[in-house]
Amino acid sequence: MKENAKKITQAHGAGGRDSAELMRDVFGKHFSNNILDKLEDGAVLPWNVAARPVVSTDSFVVKPIEFRGGDIGKLSVCGTVNDLLMMGAIPKYLTCGFVLEEGLEIATLERVVASMAATARAAGVLIVAGDTKVIESSAKANEGGGGLLIGASGIGSLRDGATPSASNARPGDAVVVSGNLGDHHACILSARMGIENDIASDCAILRETTDSLLDNGIDVHVMRDVTRGGLGTVLNEIAALSDVTVELSEIDIPVNAGVAAFCGVMGLDPLYMGNEGKMIAIVPKEQAARAVNLMRATDTGRNARVIGEILLPSERDRNLVAMKTKVGGTRRINALFGEGLPRIC
Amino acid sequence: MKENAKKITQAHGAGGRDSAELMRDVFGKHFSNNILDKLEDGAVLPWNVAARPVVSTDSFVVKPIEFRGGDIGKLSVCGTVNDLLMMGAIPKYLTCGFVLEEGLEIATLERVVASMAATARAAGVLIVAGDTKVIESSAKANEGGGGLLIGASGIGSLRDGATPSASNARPGDAVVVSGNLGDHHACILSARMGIENDIASDCAILRETTDSLLDNGIDVHVMRDVTRGGLGTVLNEIAALSDVTVELSEIDIPVNAGVAAFCGVMGLDPLYMGNEGKMIAIVPKEQAARAVNLMRATDTGRNARVIGEILLPSERDRNLVAMKTKVGGTRRINALFGEGLPRIC
Repeated sequence: MKENAKKITQAHGAGGRDSAELMRDVFGKHFSNNILDKLEDGAVLPWNVAARPVVSTDSFVVKPIEFRGGDIGKLSVCGTVNDLLMMGAIPKYLTCGFVLEEGLEIATLERVVASMAATARAAGVLIVAGDTKVIESSAKANEGGGGLLIGASGIGSLRDGATPSASNARPGDAVVVSGNLGDHHACILSARMGIENDIASDCAILRETTDSLLDNGIDVHVMRDVTRGGLGTVLNEIAALSDVTVELSEIDIPVNAGVAAFCGVMGLDPLYMGNEGKMIAIVPKEQAARAVNLMRATDTGRNARVIGEILLPSERDRNLVAMKTKVGGTRRINALFGEGLPRIC
Repeated sequence: MKENAKKITQAHGAGGRDSAELMRDVFGKHFSNNILDKLEDGAVLPWNVAARPVVSTDSFVVKPIEFRGGDIGKLSVCGTVNDLLMMGAIPKYLTCGFVLEEGLEIATLERVVASMAATARAAGVLIVAGDTKVIESSAKANEGGGGLLIGASGIGSLRDGATPSASNARPGDAVVVSGNLGDHHACILSARMGIENDIASDCAILRETTDSLLDNGIDVHVMRDVTRGGLGTVLNEIAALSDVTVELSEIDIPVNAGVAAFCGVMGLDPLYMGNEGKMIAIVPKEQAARAVNLMRATDTGRNARVIGEILLPSERDRNLVAMKTKVGGTRRINALFGEGLPRIC
């Protein structure tokens, strides 16, 4: 670390002149737009009066802050926008709250902010309100430099007629996944452990993929991005909320060869690994092949495939998630219990 | 600290079963409502289609987490709701993101969550979406127990015809403050330094006070809550955005006797101290007396008074904030520079 690199100090969080300079030179420079530039306590949103608002919120903590395929800024926009997309909303606006640890290099912060701005532009959303706080540095952060947390909320408008919901899975539906599982989790763990490999985070906006389904008349019952807790946990939530059983086919679950090898060495299960650019769509079985083809025509859905089906609730165990294994057995898939695997967020 | 008190662990943030239990037993128990209980990735909001949405966002970090007059939960709701009120919005919905440090006692978390829920009910807002992350404990936090950060966003609907804005102050306007300055800041500093006194935070929802002005036809040009950075900083922002000069009268600025004594001993200036339940309203001079009377009829505006006026931009120094002192001089009031005084947030 350079001795004279500019760093975040408590003065940047005190609400006075240093805070204002940080606003202007870092946040304002990259986020500038007609609404944010008013510098009010909040933002009045232009709004199509016929549309219902949809909101989502998430907090982002990841170390390292910058990783192969993204950084915490890109991650915060992708995660928040993807949650709106999963609700059948058109993402419109973002708010963000930064919590900066004393000692954070301002150059690092600016890279993260620029990355957020670029991701927001690509996603077609405006950052309309924000806030910054500075906290004391923890001893651990001192070893590796100041930390950074981002809280983000998203506001979108509900698409006409869109009703995807985690409680809408129905017996006879197919479970489609948009691509390979485990990339983000394996990337972050590799970076933490100093392991050199080519695994990049899948961190991405899923808009093209959700649009391809909804614009083409697929009757999507459920959409969920497969983040923290992994596919196993997400499917257990859906099974419980929809009161159904889910049956997966292990052989159909796509995992990148490098990630599969990494998982093999580390004893990790891709079913419980977090992703930041993968989703499942649960659709009527007769539309599944078309849904897969539509998704495959998009960048973020290139490796889409059907990985399972929705069954009636099982008599003995109503909301079971089970998996037919490669060797022909059946394995119960529980929600993630305890930590399960090395934590990344 | 009890040896066997239940504490937050990394498993509570892993997105699996322990996370789900925390959701159900702490957050769900206190925040339960028809929208949040759907457990989707986001929330579809019921909406009066004629109203424009207004959003605000803030992050809350305060130590101690619980203090005389409030706690971080109450603070997060008050701060977010007050920002909406200052925009002329009717607060409707809140989202919240919790960042929990390992080791936080679950009983403490539950008290904070219950306090948020009670404050939200009193403010008439629904908590519609949330998120929880767990981070490693810092060495400093270990000394005093796990920490807790809250990020919150608020969504409100713009009142018919309401246009208060920090750029709307006009020469001839009067500056009205809703009550005594410095209480919150002095309370937090006292708690940090182990000083025993009766100073309580002013942490409060300002809705009754803003409603009293807007419902009774006061033509409010600017409303701002006087938080981080204090009155001096807020007025400098308004002077710059409205291109005016502000002249305060020191003798009229209300400060509680206990707080004034505390400030005297500590060498603090109430003009730069943060408040969590105080606002200024800038209104036409001829409506100022009525505005003060309306505010005084409310709980959070009991000590309202006129403290200054808006003048034409000064020729030498366009956006000056000045104060006539008690001894008859004039003092320039700059925005807070550097840290200025012991930090509380």
